[in-house]
Amino acid sequence: MPEAEAKVHVHDLGLLRGYGIFDFFPVIRGVPLFVEDYLERFENSARLMDLDLNFTKEELRGIILQLLKHNDTPNAYMRLLLTGGVSENGFSPQRPTLIIMQHDYEKYRTGTPKDGIKLIKEQYVRDIPEAKTTNYFHVLRLRKKLVEEGAADVLYHDGKLITESSRSNFFIFKKDGTLVTAKSNVLPGVTLKNLLEAAKEHFKVEVRDLLLEELAEAQEAFLCSTLKGVPPVLQIDNQRIGDGKPGKWGQELQKIFQNRSNRYIENQTLLMRD
Amino acid sequence: MPEAEAKVHVHDLGLLRGYGIFDFFPVIRGVPLFVEDYLERFENSARLMDLDLNFTKEELRGIILQLLKHNDTPNAYMRLLLTGGVSENGFSPQRPTLIIMQHDYEKYRTGTPKDGIKLIKEQYVRDIPEAKTTNYFHVLRLRKKLVEEGAADVLYHDGKLITESSRSNFFIFKKDGTLVTAKSNVLPGVTLKNLLEAAKEHFKVEVRDLLLEELAEAQEAFLCSTLKGVPPVLQIDNQRIGDGKPGKWGQELQKIFQNRSNRYIENQTLLMRD
Repeated sequence: MPEAEAKVHVHDLGLLRGYGIFDFFPVIRGVPLFVEDYLERFENSARLMDLDLNFTKEELRGIILQLLKHNDTPNAYMRLLLTGGVSENGFSPQRPTLIIMQHDYEKYRTGTPKDGIKLIKEQYVRDIPEAKTTNYFHVLRLRKKLVEEGAADVLYHDGKLITESSRSNFFIFKKDGTLVTAKSNVLPGVTLKNLLEAAKEHFKVEVRDLLLEELAEAQEAFLCSTLKGVPPVLQIDNQRIGDGKPGKWGQELQKIFQNRSNRYIENQTLLMRD
Repeated sequence: MPEAEAKVHVHDLGLLRGYGIFDFFPVIRGVPLFVEDYLERFENSARLMDLDLNFTKEELRGIILQLLKHNDTPNAYMRLLLTGGVSENGFSPQRPTLIIMQHDYEKYRTGTPKDGIKLIKEQYVRDIPEAKTTNYFHVLRLRKKLVEEGAADVLYHDGKLITESSRSNFFIFKKDGTLVTAKSNVLPGVTLKNLLEAAKEHFKVEVRDLLLEELAEAQEAFLCSTLKGVPPVLQIDNQRIGDGKPGKWGQELQKIFQNRSNRYIENQTLLMRD
């Protein structure tokens, strides 16, 4: 159905009780990027939230390709949303609601802020952090503070360990060139996963507890997300990272990730032609 | 509009990002019970979540009475829902959505389980607990466990202090007849507030930190909510409360609260007639 007409009933538990998961990925030249990883995560989020998906990953992929074919646009963003469904008493789940949306590519694309960004630290750990839930109000209610501080986003931590940003993973390069990112209480990022797999051939990579105090030893720092790519983080609160400018390792990483994305798209294009 | 046609767009941040608050109260014989308290809390939740309400409490009350008059049913449940509104990019709030729903009284009414209930302890503190947000997935994903354990609900705690249940406040009577309920990290319950104001004339009331270990000293325990009233809690995990039967203080409290509710309704009926 047309986007303007896509609506859910006000008794849907996704709206009434914040009971929902989603996932979100780009389609480039007709290819849903890293779609196996996104569907794997979507399935996992559903399981962690005790939501019945009722479709296999293969079936979902088929529906996505059908929708893409129908809309006939080479580039897009796809959003899968699964909620507890319409409830008779406003609380007890009955039949889940699954919505697959195709968003306009140009309208959603933000691009990677090449000049770098500032984050502000925020003590908060998402509930069920391994699931991509629709629960984002913690950062939404901080949006005025972010504007005041000139910050692009928050950096969540538990008082001791850095976890993630509100919609991105986070990692640093230590002065010796080791890439370090948090192991626990983070969303398993698809962009991060693919980036690290490619980066392993060029850098030492450590997925482990990342201490707040290690920020002082960071030469470079980054966010990492589907929508924003890998933007350099140059400042956290009043703390400057490295020399406060985008660094050489970041530039190398951008290329490594771009190559991996391109290779994925080319391979899939060949497969789809067969 | 008719309930069946009441829908929100899929780009509403209440659905996409769990960015919403609500409130919920009964209407009895045409009188919205304790409506000043509920509207006060609704306004406060909006402020805590940085959502623009755009209506005064007086205006909201007027709209509610208008809706009641239009539907012409003496008893009902009303739900106010305020979300971040439809967003162009799926994240940034633009104009909030306010929805006022009238629910069928008999369909929503659960009554107070007089025979008492069981709870299970769950370590969890709601994010922004003073706001009545739509964030309920923590308990919704535990619904199978609740059924398995024969429990009606959870009892949230932070590892040391008892806070609240998923949709109710919680309090105990100590063996000396003192009523104790948690002070911090709880939703300010309207039923609790009105109950305590009336109970103060009959019991010693303490609003303070309530330790998990104090459950062992409880003679009686209760939930307290708009929908369920004041049901006795007879068991928490494997721990029996008091002698495991509904007690005399609970029965006294039920009467005290019923009297206060009736008096409120009678006073309002007189005022509305004037």
